[in-house]
Amino acid sequence: MAKKKTNSESTSKKTKNDVAVGVVGSGSFATAIVKMLVENCKTVHWCVRNEFVKGAIELRGHNPTYLTAVNFNLKNLKLTTDVNELVTACDVVVLATPSIYLSDTLDKMTCEYKDKIFVSAIKGIIPKVNDVVAHYLKEEFQIGFRNQAVIAGPCHAEEVAMERLSYLTVATVEDEVSEKLVNIFNSDFIKVNSSKDILGNEYSAILKNIFAIGAGIASGLGYGDNFTAVFVSNAIREMETFLEAIYEAPRDVNESAYLGDLLVTAYSLFSRNRNLGNLIGKGYTVKSAIQSMNMVAEGYYAADSIYKTAKQKKLELPIIDTVYGILYEGKNAEKQFRKLTAKLN
Amino acid sequence: MAKKKTNSESTSKKTKNDVAVGVVGSGSFATAIVKMLVENCKTVHWCVRNEFVKGAIELRGHNPTYLTAVNFNLKNLKLTTDVNELVTACDVVVLATPSIYLSDTLDKMTCEYKDKIFVSAIKGIIPKVNDVVAHYLKEEFQIGFRNQAVIAGPCHAEEVAMERLSYLTVATVEDEVSEKLVNIFNSDFIKVNSSKDILGNEYSAILKNIFAIGAGIASGLGYGDNFTAVFVSNAIREMETFLEAIYEAPRDVNESAYLGDLLVTAYSLFSRNRNLGNLIGKGYTVKSAIQSMNMVAEGYYAADSIYKTAKQKKLELPIIDTVYGILYEGKNAEKQFRKLTAKLN
Repeated sequence: MAKKKTNSESTSKKTKNDVAVGVVGSGSFATAIVKMLVENCKTVHWCVRNEFVKGAIELRGHNPTYLTAVNFNLKNLKLTTDVNELVTACDVVVLATPSIYLSDTLDKMTCEYKDKIFVSAIKGIIPKVNDVVAHYLKEEFQIGFRNQAVIAGPCHAEEVAMERLSYLTVATVEDEVSEKLVNIFNSDFIKVNSSKDILGNEYSAILKNIFAIGAGIASGLGYGDNFTAVFVSNAIREMETFLEAIYEAPRDVNESAYLGDLLVTAYSLFSRNRNLGNLIGKGYTVKSAIQSMNMVAEGYYAADSIYKTAKQKKLELPIIDTVYGILYEGKNAEKQFRKLTAKLN
Repeated sequence: MAKKKTNSESTSKKTKNDVAVGVVGSGSFATAIVKMLVENCKTVHWCVRNEFVKGAIELRGHNPTYLTAVNFNLKNLKLTTDVNELVTACDVVVLATPSIYLSDTLDKMTCEYKDKIFVSAIKGIIPKVNDVVAHYLKEEFQIGFRNQAVIAGPCHAEEVAMERLSYLTVATVEDEVSEKLVNIFNSDFIKVNSSKDILGNEYSAILKNIFAIGAGIASGLGYGDNFTAVFVSNAIREMETFLEAIYEAPRDVNESAYLGDLLVTAYSLFSRNRNLGNLIGKGYTVKSAIQSMNMVAEGYYAADSIYKTAKQKKLELPIIDTVYGILYEGKNAEKQFRKLTAKLN
């Protein structure tokens, strides 16, 4: 489908929200989140990577590299490259950098931030601490779970850009925070569910990227739709096993934030993790497959961390083991998948 | 992908099974099942629709209409058009006609059949009794559940024809029957799971066709991957609700026979049910969409029966309701889907 040029100045006359909200990050999902927020909020603060990106957005009204078809009305945006300026100005800070760059940004944070709400839209492991964002914020910055939220859901940025109906799940402990976040994200093209399962949502968003790499490898190796369906139905069961071991909670992994997110990542051609796997399945080396992509495939970094956690907890997760072996131990994809097929059911 | 010409005379030297097995039906799935069975069985009895089909297979070595690329060695086949001849000759009878034609065939059965094993590979409702095959065989022919089995699984015939690895689930009550069936279906490209959930497997195979019509309608209307993922994650929850209400059993709907089968049908371009929905979503009338396909989309007939059962049991199944309304009550697909989006989560 041709990309639709969308103008993200809301044309409706509805009263806009005056929550002071900001987004940190300038990749495709960060840009999609800014687009969601300008639907509802008078001003969206946006901390981008550097002066070039800031200048380009100010000049052209769109991100120069990602979701370039999304045009913003600059009156709705307050751009900065200084994380302290953004955090100081906002009550709600949405973190949407690739996971490998988050600590570079937050290490610069010297302002007061303890009463802010930090919302993670990051679906990856923070390499510095080899842990998820929720733990990283808590351990390194003493930001408690009551001041945190996670955004999850089957939500490719590219489809948000086209205003195709998408569903998000906001996971928070506090009802008041949940209500505030639901209000600023809900719109004609975004429907928001709420959840209390912060860790479950964060881990599932990370796991699904690893499974998507696996689905891509299978596709690259020539396995078909019948096999992919079996693969994904095993993946959701591995996800459930992992989540139960990490954090027991009353959850249904068939809700959109878990299964839905896995499906969109494992099946969609927009998925960079699936694409990375597909290249490896077709015979590219892991290194050259990574180099050929201009976006970060979070699942690559996540596979290492999740594999080790699973081993510590003595979990049997054949898909995770297989993807790890291919990505990190130089194992042959074709042989490993042949072995894997005997373990699936 | 180009279809691979496959020769279904097994080239391996393994000892072949001498179970007397037959297949009733000459559509694509019936043909795929015959292909699976000739891998393992010395002789496969095959009851086809009429003398034309029988003659064409005997002349050319392949089905004249479906999976024409699959070539059989005629030495492995025993063709007939007489169901009594087939049933008398076999211990295991696999039923693989479209559901709407099954009673035409079985009504002709005058031979002894009470000690045979009847395996249903049919994924639809028998119109004559408005019920599933398992109940139909039990009520109309006094074939008890101990003499029945159901084959389920994400298994498009087209991929079986190409020998792409696929997984089947065989549901039976008796371990001995299960073992026999696993042995005759297992091969290099078919892996077989076993289950005891005959009714659950049969209903899930029927439900997934209705959901696939819904997924197709969504696609035809222009909904994207993000929405489809949410739709499917709601569909599997509706399936669970329905199955629990019909027949409570210890089952995990994320196993391949349930979720996997739903996925392959909802996502694959080989799915005729999805294609039917897609045409309707694009604006074709239901009647013209059905007429334009040369295969039976089982989900169309199933929607009526399942909807009524769900109403009787007072189940809330918004997707089933929506698809039924579009197929049978002339409701507008676009409007109905807009209403549905508010009920999904």
